[in-house]
Amino acid sequence: MATTKLLVDIHTHVYLPRYANMLRARSSVPKIMTTTIDGKEQDRLLILDHEPSGGRPVGPQYWDRDQKLVFMDQHGIDVSVVSTANPWLDFLPASQAHSLALELNTDLEQYCSTGPNVTSSSIKRLYGFGLLPLVPEITTASLLEAVKQISDFPHLKGLIMGTRGVGKGLDDEALDPVWAAIEAAGLVVFLHPHYGVDGKAWGGKDNGHVLPLALGFPFETTTAATRLILSGVFDRFPKLRLLLAHSGGALPQLSSRLASCIDHDPVVASRLKHDARFYVGKLYLDAVAYGPEELGFVSEILSRANRYESGSLSTEPADRKLGSKRVLFGTDHPFFPPLSSTQKWKSVVDNLDAIDSVQGWTEEDKSGVRGTNALALFNIS
Amino acid sequence: MATTKLLVDIHTHVYLPRYANMLRARSSVPKIMTTTIDGKEQDRLLILDHEPSGGRPVGPQYWDRDQKLVFMDQHGIDVSVVSTANPWLDFLPASQAHSLALELNTDLEQYCSTGPNVTSSSIKRLYGFGLLPLVPEITTASLLEAVKQISDFPHLKGLIMGTRGVGKGLDDEALDPVWAAIEAAGLVVFLHPHYGVDGKAWGGKDNGHVLPLALGFPFETTTAATRLILSGVFDRFPKLRLLLAHSGGALPQLSSRLASCIDHDPVVASRLKHDARFYVGKLYLDAVAYGPEELGFVSEILSRANRYESGSLSTEPADRKLGSKRVLFGTDHPFFPPLSSTQKWKSVVDNLDAIDSVQGWTEEDKSGVRGTNALALFNIS
Repeated sequence: MATTKLLVDIHTHVYLPRYANMLRARSSVPKIMTTTIDGKEQDRLLILDHEPSGGRPVGPQYWDRDQKLVFMDQHGIDVSVVSTANPWLDFLPASQAHSLALELNTDLEQYCSTGPNVTSSSIKRLYGFGLLPLVPEITTASLLEAVKQISDFPHLKGLIMGTRGVGKGLDDEALDPVWAAIEAAGLVVFLHPHYGVDGKAWGGKDNGHVLPLALGFPFETTTAATRLILSGVFDRFPKLRLLLAHSGGALPQLSSRLASCIDHDPVVASRLKHDARFYVGKLYLDAVAYGPEELGFVSEILSRANRYESGSLSTEPADRKLGSKRVLFGTDHPFFPPLSSTQKWKSVVDNLDAIDSVQGWTEEDKSGVRGTNALALFNIS
Repeated sequence: MATTKLLVDIHTHVYLPRYANMLRARSSVPKIMTTTIDGKEQDRLLILDHEPSGGRPVGPQYWDRDQKLVFMDQHGIDVSVVSTANPWLDFLPASQAHSLALELNTDLEQYCSTGPNVTSSSIKRLYGFGLLPLVPEITTASLLEAVKQISDFPHLKGLIMGTRGVGKGLDDEALDPVWAAIEAAGLVVFLHPHYGVDGKAWGGKDNGHVLPLALGFPFETTTAATRLILSGVFDRFPKLRLLLAHSGGALPQLSSRLASCIDHDPVVASRLKHDARFYVGKLYLDAVAYGPEELGFVSEILSRANRYESGSLSTEPADRKLGSKRVLFGTDHPFFPPLSSTQKWKSVVDNLDAIDSVQGWTEEDKSGVRGTNALALFNIS
């Protein structure tokens, strides 16, 4: 198959068996617990305190590689770049996080390397994002050891991380050596939410998981990326490649407001080299937005980096084709399963339909978003 | 002047003298305090506990009607629909909130009615959004009395409200009689943020007001509007006209994600009459977004109501022209003043330039966003 036709899923999660077993052995959140519902035993995953609806049902699709491949085949997905799902190692003491990060990265490399190839191709069907032991009191040496390990594994193409860093968020200067090492290794950072915002914002009504998932997750990603921009990380590490989950959350829509607020605040107005929209335009976004207008829009936002580079006189209109090069298909599997059994998952079909329906993207742009952008970003060939 | 050329500012605030005097007399937040900075006395406004940078400087532009008119003249603004700035009456006991609401609505009617007319026109230069005593322990009768008062004042065209309702948020069924009265009176509800999200999200760095203003404000508006949708308010009151501050915050970009999360959650999947994007498409949004791509995008989102109406078979592409009818120019004056003295305010120029630069809007659409949409929405002629 020509690589221009490959469908590549860059937002797809796993709880590796070692990780799932650890969750099963825990008595506090995060944990996997077995409950009996309507006389049937069911594993349920609780990843946050006070989680609505008693957590969510989980099964082999969360840890079994064969199930991942079945899902991929069902949806015509040729290649998946798999990442551990939240909350990663956030809740563990430093020593345990250190050893488990190295073990999970080794497990994930094996998960990928021993898996199948794309038919008649040297390309594997599974690649991975490793993880770092990003917890309080971890040493920089430990973090750098994990970066080195990931960069040495041929099938790990980046690393997934949450928003807490080593306890003070990602705008913590203590992380500068880590960003430097990631940048030097050419690894992609996949920034993914977990905590959302303070649950009091959701009020007293039972709306299931809708508010924390639909709003809390994107708010968290938006906040973390904005704090990164404000901290000057992208001025210090201009080649750092950051991929934001869920199409960047709310950051694209709020990016001109962010630039204006920076302009109007004496504390930060002179801090950064460029307008905030320059940095936003240098990001990569997954295409997990569920609507064509949303995808068309983020591709406009991603095309504005030149206009907002310091000293630029460009007044070029936004260019969806240009911006589409930084947008990459994803499914969020095994989350968002259909409520009733269907051949294909609605969440996946919606995201594929959205790509297909974007006004202003050519067939080549759409093929890029479906797969070739990812192959280029992760240097997969 | 032809009304098609009028520039109408629907997002512009005042602390009426009665309100400013109350803030000045207070010893706890919100308050106006006089401090000496570099040997000069300066009034500073504190509206939130732990506000960064010791609050913000305030002066006559916050309360003096002549200053509002000077600002309008400087920027070619013909008509302003003025609203009390946050935090309104949220912090007052019910009895005081009740009487002050009625007094402030009377003051605002006078502020508008005794002001000038647009040259050679019956149109006034000042109209207003009244306010309700939305505080815990207020009676429904008190709220309905204020709705009646506002609807009887000829120059008050709607009411501004925050997100707390009578203490439990806007998805509280206790507000149903209020929505019913507002809908029956044909008043526009201007939903505006104040609290943002829990400040811990912003981390430990000093970024001035950037994070709470650029992100916290839109997050709060997005959450409140989403909770309103989920509560079925728009199914019960389909003619309720809701105008969201700051171009709807993050709701447009997250609207398909919201629809997908609802579809996939057994708690809410069957609750509403329509797809969430139907309700989003029925909103009105101000044009306070600071960028042309953002405005073009929200006009696409606003054009999708038909596509997402229950039973619709429409597959029409988004129509920026159609959606533009629900977008209305605003300045956020007297907030976002320039850091150094300029003839025109950058925040205003940016928003006007953004309207002018939207791809896919005709000159007529742009005139609509600048003024004629507002004249129609508020029935001003």
